[in-house]
Amino acid sequence: MQKNTNIRLTLPVVCFVWQIAMIILFGVFIRYDEESDTHWVETKAHDNITSDIENDFYFRYPSFQDVHVMIFVGFGFLMTFLKRYSFGAVGFNFLIASFGLQWALLMQGWFHSLDPQTGKIFIGVESLINADFCVAGCLIAYGAVLGKVSPVQLLVMTLFGVTLFAVEEYIILNLLHARDAGGSMVIHTFGGYYGLTISWVLYRPNLHQSKRMQGSVYHSDIFAMIGTLFLWMFWPSFNSAITDHGDGQHRAVINTYLCLASTVLTTVAISSFSQKTGKLDMVHIQNSTLAGGVALGTAAEFMISPYGALIVGFLCGIISTMGYIFISPFLEKTLKIQDTCGIHNLHAMPGVIGGIVGAITAAAASESVYGKQGLINTFDFTGDFKDRTVLTQGGYQAAGMCVSIVFGVAGGAIVGSILKLPIWGDPADENCFDDEVYWEVREPATHHLLFTIQPLGGAIVFDLVSRDELQTTFEIYI
Amino acid sequence: MQKNTNIRLTLPVVCFVWQIAMIILFGVFIRYDEESDTHWVETKAHDNITSDIENDFYFRYPSFQDVHVMIFVGFGFLMTFLKRYSFGAVGFNFLIASFGLQWALLMQGWFHSLDPQTGKIFIGVESLINADFCVAGCLIAYGAVLGKVSPVQLLVMTLFGVTLFAVEEYIILNLLHARDAGGSMVIHTFGGYYGLTISWVLYRPNLHQSKRMQGSVYHSDIFAMIGTLFLWMFWPSFNSAITDHGDGQHRAVINTYLCLASTVLTTVAISSFSQKTGKLDMVHIQNSTLAGGVALGTAAEFMISPYGALIVGFLCGIISTMGYIFISPFLEKTLKIQDTCGIHNLHAMPGVIGGIVGAITAAAASESVYGKQGLINTFDFTGDFKDRTVLTQGGYQAAGMCVSIVFGVAGGAIVGSILKLPIWGDPADENCFDDEVYWEVREPATHHLLFTIQPLGGAIVFDLVSRDELQTTFEIYI
Amino acid sequence: MQKNTNIRLTLPVVCFVWQIAMIILFGVFIRYDEESDTHWVETKAHDNITSDIENDFYFRYPSFQDVHVMIFVGFGFLMTFLKRYSFGAVGFNFLIASFGLQWALLMQGWFHSLDPQTGKIFIGVESLINADFCVAGCLIAYGAVLGKVSPVQLLVMTLFGVTLFAVEEYIILNLLHARDAGGSMVIHTFGGYYGLTISWVLYRPNLHQSKRMQGSVYHSDIFAMIGTLFLWMFWPSFNSAITDHGDGQHRAVINTYLCLASTVLTTVAISSFSQKTGKLDMVHIQNSTLAGGVALGTAAEFMISPYGALIVGFLCGIISTMGYIFISPFLEKTLKIQDTCGIHNLHAMPGVIGGIVGAITAAAASESVYGKQGLINTFDFTGDFKDRTVLTQGGYQAAGMCVSIVFGVAGGAIVGSILKLPIWGDPADENCFDDEVYWEVREPATHHLLFTIQPLGGAIVFDLVSRDELQTTFEIYI
Repeated sequence: MQKNTNIRLTLPVVCFVWQIAMIILFGVFIRYDEESDTHWVETKAHDNITSDIENDFYFRYPSFQDVHVMIFVGFGFLMTFLKRYSFGAVGFNFLIASFGLQWALLMQGWFHSLDPQTGKIFIGVESLINADFCVAGCLIAYGAVLGKVSPVQLLVMTLFGVTLFAVEEYIILNLLHARDAGGSMVIHTFGGYYGLTISWVLYRPNLHQSKRMQGSVYHSDIFAMIGTLFLWMFWPSFNSAITDHGDGQHRAVINTYLCLASTVLTTVAISSFSQKTGKLDMVHIQNSTLAGGVALGTAAEFMISPYGALIVGFLCGIISTMGYIFISPFLEKTLKIQDTCGIHNLHAMPGVIGGIVGAITAAAASESVYGKQGLINTFDFTGDFKDRTVLTQGGYQAAGMCVSIVFGVAGGAIVGSILKLPIWGDPADENCFDDEVYWEVREPATHHLLFTIQPLGGAIVFDLVSRDELQTTFEIYI
Repeated sequence: MQKNTNIRLTLPVVCFVWQIAMIILFGVFIRYDEESDTHWVETKAHDNITSDIENDFYFRYPSFQDVHVMIFVGFGFLMTFLKRYSFGAVGFNFLIASFGLQWALLMQGWFHSLDPQTGKIFIGVESLINADFCVAGCLIAYGAVLGKVSPVQLLVMTLFGVTLFAVEEYIILNLLHARDAGGSMVIHTFGGYYGLTISWVLYRPNLHQSKRMQGSVYHSDIFAMIGTLFLWMFWPSFNSAITDHGDGQHRAVINTYLCLASTVLTTVAISSFSQKTGKLDMVHIQNSTLAGGVALGTAAEFMISPYGALIVGFLCGIISTMGYIFISPFLEKTLKIQDTCGIHNLHAMPGVIGGIVGAITAAAASESVYGKQGLINTFDFTGDFKDRTVLTQGGYQAAGMCVSIVFGVAGGAIVGSILKLPIWGDPADENCFDDEVYWEVREPATHHLLFTIQPLGGAIVFDLVSRDELQTTFEIYI
Repeated sequence: MQKNTNIRLTLPVVCFVWQIAMIILFGVFIRYDEESDTHWVETKAHDNITSDIENDFYFRYPSFQDVHVMIFVGFGFLMTFLKRYSFGAVGFNFLIASFGLQWALLMQGWFHSLDPQTGKIFIGVESLINADFCVAGCLIAYGAVLGKVSPVQLLVMTLFGVTLFAVEEYIILNLLHARDAGGSMVIHTFGGYYGLTISWVLYRPNLHQSKRMQGSVYHSDIFAMIGTLFLWMFWPSFNSAITDHGDGQHRAVINTYLCLASTVLTTVAISSFSQKTGKLDMVHIQNSTLAGGVALGTAAEFMISPYGALIVGFLCGIISTMGYIFISPFLEKTLKIQDTCGIHNLHAMPGVIGGIVGAITAAAASESVYGKQGLINTFDFTGDFKDRTVLTQGGYQAAGMCVSIVFGVAGGAIVGSILKLPIWGDPADENCFDDEVYWEVREPATHHLLFTIQPLGGAIVFDLVSRDELQTTFEIYI
């Protein structure tokens, strides 16, 4: 019970040492790519590029900024729903994303784009997007352990999470040559199971002791909607940020836009139907409305067709909301997985659906729909993979999904065990979900005293309903 | 008084059935256009397009995303100002926009871009922008009835609103060949009068019974400013999103940027002058500062010149703020129009001004200012309209504005009558503006007890000022 | 003590007169540039431009919108942290930015782009960005006097601030030919010292009388994080918005992105280390995390290399957070500078660091790193400056920084003296940081009564801790 949450040494040391390591490694490895180097003027002349607008920057920067907003405002504010953990939600999200993106540039660079001749990693705007994507996986995992871990644990989780991510991504995208532009498998399935497994290892049987801090208050739910909406609105940018120039980005946007719209309606339907009088639940609206974006991560660039996108969204709204109603309680009670934000319903399950949708639509692709060159471009059937058939591709897509689950579960089990060591300054069971553990909070949590007041004879009767389970009635004579 | 607000059947059924209808209709009608189809590689070769950057996606996507933010965060948060209706504001806004954009793609497709040969509607990024625009009309209307209707009524209102919108838009833009890039007439005038007329039909003589729920609290006013600012900042994107490539988009941005800046100053001036000690009113700052963007919707792409844009903004700030001070109370008392958000002052009136400004500036256009080709491009004097003079154009612009008013009022009257049926689960008069009717609210509304405390002899004197009209003083002996 | 804060005449008069002056001056001077004029079609033909995408609009508009968000939401919400001054923070920010950008278009136009033949200023998207930049300087200064001045004073401060800005910018960028794409010197150093000096002139020895209003509450800190995050996320757009097309914009984004990530880690480290139990302080997270963006304003477009950017961020996080802990109290006590938002730590100091970093990296630039043409492009060694060496350039960069400090301090002293006149309606010492002075606040500030309740014998014991320094214990018999 007497947990030591003093992180005055560990947190600064980890931040300093890791940041210095980043500087050294960046010094050794990271350079500007040819489109962001001052030698671009020579590259242009050499490659006969007539206009600066051909710089990849102009194809991807608007999408990058949208993704950037999703990472920092989207994920950050989505998690502010707890009544007294908003500092931790948005603040630790900020911290781990800032570290994670640096480490991701290195890890992804080593695996994907290390130049064999110079031994350098050359980065441009697409590298920044990929780093943000990689970080997203870790932020998803944060959702499962929100309020129950220390910032030091989160940094450790991110260090390993990014490392695992880069490896599974390399296996799925490069070795298996699966397509996963919006990361249903690589980001959401991996991140989801990684977080859930860590949460399972860190199971707290006495978490009910901080029950008073779980749940939202009115304004924290509205803060969370800021996160929801920025994720929802910019998801088309997420799924299209690294797809092919031209029709690839264009199509991914249309598909995601439609899919998400459809998800909102079925989320509302199930949420309303699950309550006696048809009232809506903010938890569903904040989370399940996003499931369609997750599930279209793989297939967004495919010719899934507009109505196909609507169908995926339709199903995901139902499944995700049902998840909050039925599966989350089951996970907690039976499987001992405490999933603060319900990432199983928002990321893990829809991610798996996305992998399946991707495999099926890839296997069903045909030259009559895509055109000969369109098929080659979409699935990148070039080089070593120029003879691959769409059926084979479908198989490799499915294999990719299994890889992401295995990495999530196995990685989560290992990292969870590391995080279980009693050195990280995590909070006691009765102090979970409370910002006061890691933050200077100037305004102490108030006891909300809820009164019904009525003048009654010579007295005012107060019906007092404190949310701290104290309930009484008393009178004040005046 | 005993209204049944149970929507456990109606809401899910409407959501499910309509979404399934969307899927079927999309399956029959909607396809990717040539710029978002994998055959784009062939189109490029055929049309001799040298670079993917020529894809319309890169001209319009940044503006589209800004518009998308306006629809979901802008409109959604602008309406969160009520103390206990923020869930409904942002949540129902989310729901009806998500449905509306799907239905809009179909309705606008049938009227504007149904391919006669294939019977299909081909969609691209411009279609998405237009769908968002169409939805904006319905969200404006929502502002008039905010807090007084059920989500089912809102969905019905949106179904008919989008339908009416597509028809009036077809008449104004295609038949009359009026120009209205930012939708002063098509979006704001129509949406404004549509909502006001519905609110007039649904007049609640006993609305004062929920007076305690009207008005804002401190934090809800700040939430509303999120909406205001995102609308204000991105309005240049709104007015330029579908204007001509190149100078058309460029000029519309400059004009709207300037016009809105000017509006802020006159709004502040009138707001301050209207109070005894010069204090500002948040209602004015949240709403009237936006009126300039509405009023420049039609003329944004014209050569109205920078100082012209400033003048429009100058006038709109004055008129809109005056509207809140003088006209809204008049509408409510005399015309029996209860306009929760004051859309008459923010959309309807400025929309009409915008239509007039558009007609005048069109009629005053000249080859000396626009250049020969510039005039043709700006007013699209090609095909059937190649011999139209600017004076005639001005006339048709004015005619367009009348059409939008007629559609708004007539449509609102019909739809209002439908919504008056006692089957939609709308709230009782005393439960208006209260989220608890349609939402699971975990934190019950608190009685805010406002005390002045002073030790006085042996007692502490509490001066109690409850906002629930109870006011008393009592002492507690210690 | 009896200060008159009635601004019912002054505020409306200033707004009206100045806005009318803007309209007249715009009518005389401001015209569309060739890329936003309908004659663009002829320009294209004349200059042999093949595509509309070559219009500068498409190079800069996405960055412009990000900058626009920083100005209105970023700066506005960053200042909402005070418990009862959020209306003033976001509302007055809105007002002065809206006025300032108009005046900036004129002032910057006269100094930078007045066409000698026509006597006109031709504006396009880059002018809008520069106007927003200019306004940023004044909003920074607002941070120092937040809560202590009237809106009329703020408008006066902005009028002179923009004027001074345009002059110092002309000296630094045109006469000295220093480079300062993201404005470390021109914007942040100037704005910082301008605000600090004004605050020094307006020193209030009895400011402690409004101590109860200083500091934040839980939700106001989260609102402030909206500002922080939008500033942080979009800073890469800020520093790249007006850099060279192509690699220039691309590189500035990468550098700023990395620098800011690094800053977050060292800010967290110092913040945690400065507290007994390692708790984090929201003030640091909200502000110091941004210092890296400020400090890279000058060098963002240089070949500072990715690890160089990380080092700058590393140092700035440390210095800025230390500033909040050690320097701010020193400034207040010893130098009599009351700096509400700590702009010395967020803008002034990091701005100076940015100027130094810029001078050093410019002096250290070499043809081997930049390439011959790259060096010329980056430092614009053309025309009169075609023979300048990088060492000389470094010297001029340093000179530029001195100019910005001198203008800030001298300008602030003069403007501060003007603002000291007793005619502007500023609040009394005990009413500072209180929205009720200038705003209609519907919900009066509540006395937060913090109780610990325990049933004790026949009584309930209330331990009352009012934040208004009243502390007592009383019992209520029931």
